[in-house]
Amino acid sequence: MNIVLKPIGVIHSPFKDLDGMPIQPAGASGVKGSVEVFEEYRTGLKDLDGFSHIVLLYLFHRSQGFSLHVVPYLDTQMRGVFATRAPRRPNAIGLSVVQLDMIKDGMLQIQNVDILDGTPLLDIKPYVPEFDTQVKVRTGWLENVKATVKHRKSDDRFK
Amino acid sequence: MNIVLKPIGVIHSPFKDLDGMPIQPAGASGVKGSVEVFEEYRTGLKDLDGFSHIVLLYLFHRSQGFSLHVVPYLDTQMRGVFATRAPRRPNAIGLSVVQLDMIKDGMLQIQNVDILDGTPLLDIKPYVPEFDTQVKVRTGWLENVKATVKHRKSDDRFK
Repeated sequence: MNIVLKPIGVIHSPFKDLDGMPIQPAGASGVKGSVEVFEEYRTGLKDLDGFSHIVLLYLFHRSQGFSLHVVPYLDTQMRGVFATRAPRRPNAIGLSVVQLDMIKDGMLQIQNVDILDGTPLLDIKPYVPEFDTQVKVRTGWLENVKATVKHRKSDDRFK
Repeated sequence: MNIVLKPIGVIHSPFKDLDGMPIQPAGASGVKGSVEVFEEYRTGLKDLDGFSHIVLLYLFHRSQGFSLHVVPYLDTQMRGVFATRAPRRPNAIGLSVVQLDMIKDGMLQIQNVDILDGTPLLDIKPYVPEFDTQVKVRTGWLENVKATVKHRKSDDRFK
């Protein structure tokens, strides 16, 4: 069974290369970018401007193939890829919650961008804490290192 | 540009049909289900059991085509599809944050399941509040109705 998707737009950001890019929106505070939605999909943006944050789903287009075990940016040990947010996944879909500042002519101005310039956009969803937020959580191997996400940058390990 | 994905597993739940299904995990509190990860991907589950919650990305496989304007389950007005979580999207990818209870032999026991039985699984990511949670948000048209998600069920509008 093959599932065929088509990009609905493209994400623009200051990051032309993986080297030195923030690895999560929490490490990209204030970094501005934009989302260009292709013309045929723009009417679907109606009402989105009421939301301060959006979920972007996109293709990790620079990632080739996949690895089931990876050493994530925040660690020095091999982890199962599904226990990480690493890009080299069987289905290379990325997820970022970003701040939405403005929409005009099919262009979304966004902040907290941890995404490569030129990334194909797959979907936009409104971020709704009542749907998406969990409290009282355990975060496994990330428990002691997740705070470092604010400073850690990516490198060339997933090229 | 076509993007080709392959299911990495299948989601099992008590919901055989859209009619009467919870429309978000928040409306499916305590509903148990399971995620079967296909054998060739199971080694990628290493370390995932340290996480209490996971993000599931999956295909809305019962949704045919897409609509750029939809009347969402929680509303009576037409909204842009990207301002909703409705299934009939250009790329029909669903996202649910569910509770992970146990992993054994490639089967994940989960709770708070708002997903149809037999749904093709695309990706599993660890849920990490430091990456995924936003505070001080605006939620547009959902502001006054989002609490009703706990009780509202789906119907046949997106079949």
